Amino acid sequence: MAFEWPLRVYIEDTDAGGIVFYANYLRYMERARSEWLRALGFEQQALMEAGVRFVVRDLNIQYRKAAVLDDQVIATTELAEITKAGLTLNQTVIRRSESAETAEELLVDAQVRVACINNEGRPAAIPVDIAALMKT
Amino acid sequence: MAFEWPLRVYIEDTDAGGIVFYANYLRYMERARSEWLRALGFEQQALMEAGVRFVVRDLNIQYRKAAVLDDQVIATTELAEITKAGLTLNQTVIRRSESAETAEELLVDAQVRVACINNEGRPAAIPVDIAALMKT
Amino acid sequence: MAFEWPLRVYIEDTDAGGIVFYANYLRYMERARSEWLRALGFEQQALMEAGVRFVVRDLNIQYRKAAVLDDQVIATTELAEITKAGLTLNQTVIRRSESAETAEELLVDAQVRVACINNEGRPAAIPVDIAALMKT
Amino acid sequence: MAFEWPLRVYIEDTDAGGIVFYANYLRYMERARSEWLRALGFEQQALMEAGVRFVVRDLNIQYRKAAVLDDQVIATTELAEITKAGLTLNQTVIRRSESAETAEELLVDAQVRVACINNEGRPAAIPVDIAALMKT
Repeated sequence: MAFEWPLRVYIEDTDAGGIVFYANYLRYMERARSEWLRALGFEQQALMEAGVRFVVRDLNIQYRKAAVLDDQVIATTELAEITKAGLTLNQTVIRRSESAETAEELLVDAQVRVACINNEGRPAAIPVDIAALMKT
Repeated sequence: MAFEWPLRVYIEDTDAGGIVFYANYLRYMERARSEWLRALGFEQQALMEAGVRFVVRDLNIQYRKAAVLDDQVIATTELAEITKAGLTLNQTVIRRSESAETAEELLVDAQVRVACINNEGRPAAIPVDIAALMKT
Repeated sequence: MAFEWPLRVYIEDTDAGGIVFYANYLRYMERARSEWLRALGFEQQALMEAGVRFVVRDLNIQYRKAAVLDDQVIATTELAEITKAGLTLNQTVIRRSESAETAEELLVDAQVRVACINNEGRPAAIPVDIAALMKT
Repeated sequence: MAFEWPLRVYIEDTDAGGIVFYANYLRYMERARSEWLRALGFEQQALMEAGVRFVVRDLNIQYRKAAVLDDQVIATTELAEITKAGLTLNQTVIRRSESAETAEELLVDAQVRVACINNEGRPAAIPVDIAALMKT
């Protein structure tokens, strides 16, 4: 079960090619991760103040179809694996259409490895309460 | 009566000073303008294809308080004046708090002059149906 | 005498309208301000660590002509006024062409009021060594 | 032999964590690809008008160390493979320091697969003159 976060494509997201600029899908995916954390009860500002940060260590992304201006898209995030100090997420950006033929189009999909670090940038254990909620 | 569009502050919006980067309030204000147009029944992609574009001609913005990560803010837009080929909007970004003392904080406010142009970049009359709806 | 900083327009700067997105001129102007400070001998990271920050308080910008992909433009910054705790800058983004007819085109011009604050966000005096160099 | 493009980290590139936001390395890498093409004699605006576009199909990026405000970094791009309608590039962002101990730090490295498409978004052969120059 993937967590879903709906998004609108604005002019700021597009480029002169008429499509969403490739780096901006990473902004969409970060919003989905933040909202997933918030849905679990955690906000990043509070986590930072508690010395807990999540940073992307590596990312593998496939661009399949382009989103365009005014599109309503959905960024998803799903936990694939969790270890003591990190997690792997499967993320996508999809477009759901009203028409039956193109019910759901996969625009991008990505595998994202995230590490937990402390304020000094050192690897740190994911707090147990967060880890427990992520697994549910 | 101002049109209101709620927004969340994400890490992408912030800078090393710990606050929202000053140019990003212009992204927020553009989203509010786009959603106001959409609420009136018009989408920009369709307008562009019909040869109608709205572009900002000048902008006067006052930065009063800073938004920070995880803030829930509201971008507003209100028609101040409309002429044959342009409009002036009053826009703000505000933060509404649960606590009574700081019920509503004005973060930025701006006066934005927008022109209507055709696909060749020449001044064009605002289509009458759009102008009529904007005035209501 | 304005300080000049040359810039290239990349696809990241443009939008689906085929031109530079209006908020991105504020990124260009910030780069020119940072490079002007650096040319005077000051870097922002070091200033922040010393408790000195410069923040934009208000901004008045006129959009005259659009920059497009691959354009070589110049962001300028010039001190108009300096007080104990703030400064006013005149800034432009211009395009210099090889052809004689359009020797120099003014794309945007802006008046930017900047305040000096400390790490708590309170107004602070501009350090005297910086103020002295800014005036030269 | 990798093509190198020097870049400065500005406040716009950073986030509230005090480091460069992870999506912004993709902006840096795109600039290096654009400048590599320009060094070969091709500009994207002219290519688009000729019906030739290069789009990223997939991307694998490893984040090793963070760039911070004021850093002078170098984005590199090197052709790994070229086929009729696409190319694979090895790209990095590195930091070169004056001090001997940390002579060169690898911040991110990425493998980027780029496809050539026409204005309708269909796969297209890389123009032979461009392909020939890329191989040199």
